[in-house]
Amino acid sequence: MSNANSNSTDVIIIGGGFAGVTAGRELSNLGLESIILEGRDRLAGRTWTKESDIGIPLEMGGTWVHWAMPYVWSEVKRYDLPLYITPFAEEAYWKTRNGLSTGTPDDLADVLDNGMNQLLSRSLEAFPTPHDPFPLTDLAHELDPKTIEEAINELDVSTEEKDVLNGIWALHFNCDAERGGFTTALRWGALANQDWKYLAEITERYKFVNGTQELLNAIQNDSKSQVKLNSPVTSIDEQEDQVVVTTRDGQRYSAKQVIVTVPINALKNLEFNGPFDPNALSIAQAGQASNGLKVWMRVQGQHKPFHCLGTSQDTLHWIQYENDLDGDSVLVAFAPDASRLDGNNVAEVQKALHEYRPDLEVLAVDSHDWVNDEFAQQTWTMFRPCQLTGDATTLLTKHTRTWLAGADYAHGWTSFIDGAIESGMRTARRISRTL
Amino acid sequence: MSNANSNSTDVIIIGGGFAGVTAGRELSNLGLESIILEGRDRLAGRTWTKESDIGIPLEMGGTWVHWAMPYVWSEVKRYDLPLYITPFAEEAYWKTRNGLSTGTPDDLADVLDNGMNQLLSRSLEAFPTPHDPFPLTDLAHELDPKTIEEAINELDVSTEEKDVLNGIWALHFNCDAERGGFTTALRWGALANQDWKYLAEITERYKFVNGTQELLNAIQNDSKSQVKLNSPVTSIDEQEDQVVVTTRDGQRYSAKQVIVTVPINALKNLEFNGPFDPNALSIAQAGQASNGLKVWMRVQGQHKPFHCLGTSQDTLHWIQYENDLDGDSVLVAFAPDASRLDGNNVAEVQKALHEYRPDLEVLAVDSHDWVNDEFAQQTWTMFRPCQLTGDATTLLTKHTRTWLAGADYAHGWTSFIDGAIESGMRTARRISRTL
Repeated sequence: MSNANSNSTDVIIIGGGFAGVTAGRELSNLGLESIILEGRDRLAGRTWTKESDIGIPLEMGGTWVHWAMPYVWSEVKRYDLPLYITPFAEEAYWKTRNGLSTGTPDDLADVLDNGMNQLLSRSLEAFPTPHDPFPLTDLAHELDPKTIEEAINELDVSTEEKDVLNGIWALHFNCDAERGGFTTALRWGALANQDWKYLAEITERYKFVNGTQELLNAIQNDSKSQVKLNSPVTSIDEQEDQVVVTTRDGQRYSAKQVIVTVPINALKNLEFNGPFDPNALSIAQAGQASNGLKVWMRVQGQHKPFHCLGTSQDTLHWIQYENDLDGDSVLVAFAPDASRLDGNNVAEVQKALHEYRPDLEVLAVDSHDWVNDEFAQQTWTMFRPCQLTGDATTLLTKHTRTWLAGADYAHGWTSFIDGAIESGMRTARRISRTL
Repeated sequence: MSNANSNSTDVIIIGGGFAGVTAGRELSNLGLESIILEGRDRLAGRTWTKESDIGIPLEMGGTWVHWAMPYVWSEVKRYDLPLYITPFAEEAYWKTRNGLSTGTPDDLADVLDNGMNQLLSRSLEAFPTPHDPFPLTDLAHELDPKTIEEAINELDVSTEEKDVLNGIWALHFNCDAERGGFTTALRWGALANQDWKYLAEITERYKFVNGTQELLNAIQNDSKSQVKLNSPVTSIDEQEDQVVVTTRDGQRYSAKQVIVTVPINALKNLEFNGPFDPNALSIAQAGQASNGLKVWMRVQGQHKPFHCLGTSQDTLHWIQYENDLDGDSVLVAFAPDASRLDGNNVAEVQKALHEYRPDLEVLAVDSHDWVNDEFAQQTWTMFRPCQLTGDATTLLTKHTRTWLAGADYAHGWTSFIDGAIESGMRTARRISRTL
């Protein structure tokens, strides 16, 4: 055991999001010391419960949890944290090449149903044990070159159906559907027992009353891990008997092992010197698929809960009602391409909203552009075609004294808080068996 | 903090099954001391990986886990424990008042499908957040007086369908279907997203390669809780500032709080003196519903994987192939009434097996009669009609210095290892907030 105030420890954890703090707590419970080096001036990574510009705290990143997400659910209940629901929509609006349609959410679900069932019908064949995807099945290998857009276009469904399918998957991928790999959709499908309505329920219904921050703080409060904020790491040097980590301000830290929780697209911030250089992999150079935006808005007046679905071509391709705020309405929306919208510009957001609801007046907006955030450079990780069977397998399974953990490297719910907790816990435990 | 060798501690835990050891580990992680008083000469309660009479270690009690069971799944992955599957059956045999039918498992599933879908169709309406059932919905109150047998008999399906439905639910309830409460079936349905095939997959597919014992030992190895085996408790005396627990041999232990993990039917072993006496509740006097038996057998020769389904009237109402053993076959079976079968008598078991498969010769059997085990007096807890909305709500939610935990008192997967872990973790955490 090293001195608590020295720069030497058992395990260095780069990044203090859910994976990092979970790993730190797990190591603490095992009697191991760790130091979390966090580049930002706050913990929590791509979750961020922020005092927002629209008058209430908002989730700028990861938000929803569910009991079908086993790792985060166990933590929600460990700390007895209250949840509440995104209300069920009463009206639906969907844009296709036929123009704007309106109806009930069930009407929209009916347009989606046939295609979604077809798309996900082989999910469990491709990923029979979806929390343990490796080694990948032959079917996963066979389907990995396909984009989700190609998989949709091959279906024997109408053009309207293809357009809404494009929109819903562009939403899930947080990018144009032409960028997303079909196998990533199948992994989600397998985790939701091939039921697309259950998938929707799992991924966007239950939220934290007091923010995702409350869970992160609860985990960190149970940890003895030391946190160093404002400490961006520049290099990781693996030596025969230790790892040396250097921060931007020239501080050097040493440990027996290091956990890197940096998102895939931001790995290039780091220089890896040693037997494993993730940046030598094409996936680190090309980046994963997501490059969209999450936008919050406050609109004038009270409105019935509703949702809007567009396609990859729309500025905003998903908008949903979240709650009443002093007689106004709070909406959350997603854009498939962060470069096409300034999420902090009221006029731009209002113009995009008016494609569906010209009757609504936007009073205030808030958004964080994760794609242009140096420590993220992306939103949630979704693989492009050929990545899962290619370099992603290496990223998700290889380690030396350098271990990758985080939602990006999860084996189950990749890209969710659940996956971050899973990989943080798994990695800390595996490291403990080597020490 | 008390002296480690004294009889005084922070928390006394009565019973060292999954709930007890999980509570002990959780308290240890929080820096709190605990003593586990276990009546038997071993830990693990109603899970028991035993060197059996048929030549291999067998699970005499709880066995199966799945990623839809969030608490146990997190532990499986925390400790990296290998799982394997009960093989998919290739042949099915089912007994109804029309006689014995044979076919594929899909043929049997087709007979079950319509009725199962009807039965579970209101699961999520009755239990919209199935891991948080309290306060119970109006619909749960409305349906609670009904038995599962009555719910089946009300369906507009054939007599053959009613018989197979009776059998499958008698299996789930581990008793005659006339004893089981319909709402307990709906709770399972809600946890499985109203999909009966998913429910079957969740509840009997994935098993521990090295036994449930491996998980229990892993949890206990991470705990500083002291274990006292062969220490059956006789009384719990709640005083103003402490609880005093007395064992059969006259030892007295004191603590700030006590966790009782004794099954519902065995609560009557204990005398509760204080503000909360669970034995004053009618559910403790009447007992819950299950009173069946799990039987293992080794049969001569290799056979295709198969399963057999009977009804509440059969001696064995479920039999399934598990694995090959040196050229013989291992089967597991369930009986709806432990008083009708000696599970350790080869001739009796063979007679029951021959109702479905007269071609098979039983070489050896093994079974543990939990109903006549003084520390259990039941198998897995399933509520009778009117219990959930009646005294079970009190049992599952009330506490003074005396807290109930265990699979019986779970809020989610009641009666499974998952529920034991859930309630142990939840209870330890809640206690820690009072200390």
